[in-house]
Amino acid sequence: MQDTHITLSHGNGGRFMRELIDELFARHLGNPELDVHTDAVPIQIPEGELLFTTDGFIVQPLEFPGGNIGSLAVHGATNDLAVAGATPLYLSLSAFIEEGLALATLDRLIAATAAAAQEIGVRVVAGDTKVVPRGEGGGLYLAVSALGVRPHGLRLGLREIRAGDLILVSGTVGDHGAAVMLARQQFGLRGELRSDATSVLPFTLALRELPGLRFMRDPTRGGLATVAHEITHACGLGVRLDEPRIPVREPVRSVCEMLGYDPLFLACEGRVVAVVAPEQAERALHAWRSLPGGEQAQLIGEVSAGDPWVVLRTELGGERLLGELEDDPLPRIC
Amino acid sequence: MQDTHITLSHGNGGRFMRELIDELFARHLGNPELDVHTDAVPIQIPEGELLFTTDGFIVQPLEFPGGNIGSLAVHGATNDLAVAGATPLYLSLSAFIEEGLALATLDRLIAATAAAAQEIGVRVVAGDTKVVPRGEGGGLYLAVSALGVRPHGLRLGLREIRAGDLILVSGTVGDHGAAVMLARQQFGLRGELRSDATSVLPFTLALRELPGLRFMRDPTRGGLATVAHEITHACGLGVRLDEPRIPVREPVRSVCEMLGYDPLFLACEGRVVAVVAPEQAERALHAWRSLPGGEQAQLIGEVSAGDPWVVLRTELGGERLLGELEDDPLPRIC
Repeated sequence: MQDTHITLSHGNGGRFMRELIDELFARHLGNPELDVHTDAVPIQIPEGELLFTTDGFIVQPLEFPGGNIGSLAVHGATNDLAVAGATPLYLSLSAFIEEGLALATLDRLIAATAAAAQEIGVRVVAGDTKVVPRGEGGGLYLAVSALGVRPHGLRLGLREIRAGDLILVSGTVGDHGAAVMLARQQFGLRGELRSDATSVLPFTLALRELPGLRFMRDPTRGGLATVAHEITHACGLGVRLDEPRIPVREPVRSVCEMLGYDPLFLACEGRVVAVVAPEQAERALHAWRSLPGGEQAQLIGEVSAGDPWVVLRTELGGERLLGELEDDPLPRIC
Repeated sequence: MQDTHITLSHGNGGRFMRELIDELFARHLGNPELDVHTDAVPIQIPEGELLFTTDGFIVQPLEFPGGNIGSLAVHGATNDLAVAGATPLYLSLSAFIEEGLALATLDRLIAATAAAAQEIGVRVVAGDTKVVPRGEGGGLYLAVSALGVRPHGLRLGLREIRAGDLILVSGTVGDHGAAVMLARQQFGLRGELRSDATSVLPFTLALRELPGLRFMRDPTRGGLATVAHEITHACGLGVRLDEPRIPVREPVRSVCEMLGYDPLFLACEGRVVAVVAPEQAERALHAWRSLPGGEQAQLIGEVSAGDPWVVLRTELGGERLLGELEDDPLPRIC
């Protein structure tokens, strides 16, 4: 790392964040069971593969069409367990609340937290609150840790990916990022956009017993493009994405064109990217498309031998390299 | 709750915080396994009583004599497990980092986090980082969740307390609160104060198998006085504390006199308050005093039938009621 101070780039899901985590956090905290590149980590306990994960949440505005920071925190943390193949069971919730936040607002946010947990069937079993002085804290920050159990013998992870595997996405991308940007009303734009934030558990349960399932991840910070880059970094393989196949809602595309953003880098909070053996792709796609909200699931690309780059096949049949998110071109949305 | 907005009083460990937690968080999140009045919660899993807890950390300055926010977070979260009778095993760490924080500072803080974890024998197995814009976030906030295992059959908790039980403290009180206040250098005072922040695990392991041990708690936010009030609230019994027996270091006493604070309300981050059956008090005290750092352990009071008040027997033989922390007379230190 060449910087001497933290910048926003250290939190955006791209290279600088990876370096910060690899070179600072992992250096100090590293141990055989700490894998900073997986969404949830198995810890050895008698009689079961218990998975434990944590996630912090900062979002402005705190409430947006389709969710709020409370429901987002539950979905985000439990989705990390779900994509690792686990069934979420328990949550802890640590809240940093800013002095001056309206109790009515907090009430709505925590109600949404509880509702999201109940819908997924998880229990918040530990909590903590701190109040920070006015001007600090962005209204509310949440940190959620989650525990879940994964069936024995499930082998999922970046290391399972092989050249020739196919890449699927469970629905449209960029909805969350675009909806939160619009909700800020700082761009003079209005639209019908809703966040996609939801539990992906039905989608991961539908696939987790599938032979040939290699890897699942929810494309949150940094979006689909960042998941593609994680695959190339971890596997030393290439990723080819078919741009015309990637489902993007028309209003998301419009907003991105007006503001100069690429929807592939926008956060999703209710989608899954899965890598599967080629002979299983059809079955996986069928399973997803038969779920509510899965109608737009798509085969969007493949893992290829050769240079560990992310290549985008464009509408016109050309190819271009898809760069990595390095600085912070996007407003802070998660 | 009569307020319409969050104030600092909602985070100070006193009445307003309890009401906020009871009437808002617990109302939404309540379920049979959520007990907002215990330090760590047992969750049912096959073959063991696994305990899970979470704690958020905000402290200014981030570094103070005797510790920093990183070591404090590990000690604080694992101490919550320890006083519940568990042996801590795993941690998750969620960091909210302010834009502009020096990497060298962050490096020291995370190094201290790792060192504290190693000394206790716990592993940080999950983590998350978010960067918040300059001006938000107080440099660094940390949220830690912790998992530990407790021997089967251990019955500890506020409900086990009976009239006639005796109250012990494992060392001097108020050192952490006073040290952090002085470290701010906003009072024009300098002193040799060090925080007491450390792991209390040796102290809780020394007592947890003792027959007649009813309850242990670390007196953090709100200090010893707040633990006493928690006992009266939960048990409907009185607490009598012998002021002359409560160990307070001379420099802590001096700082408190100058600034008008009561050391009984100052946070400790490396002490245990234990409630034991009267016939076991001598044995418990002996066990603590034979530990490094336990030389000043003291019998400081008793649980009594009658009104659920906290009564202080003063130096001069009089008695006075010790009020509850309601507003925020103390600088924010944890």
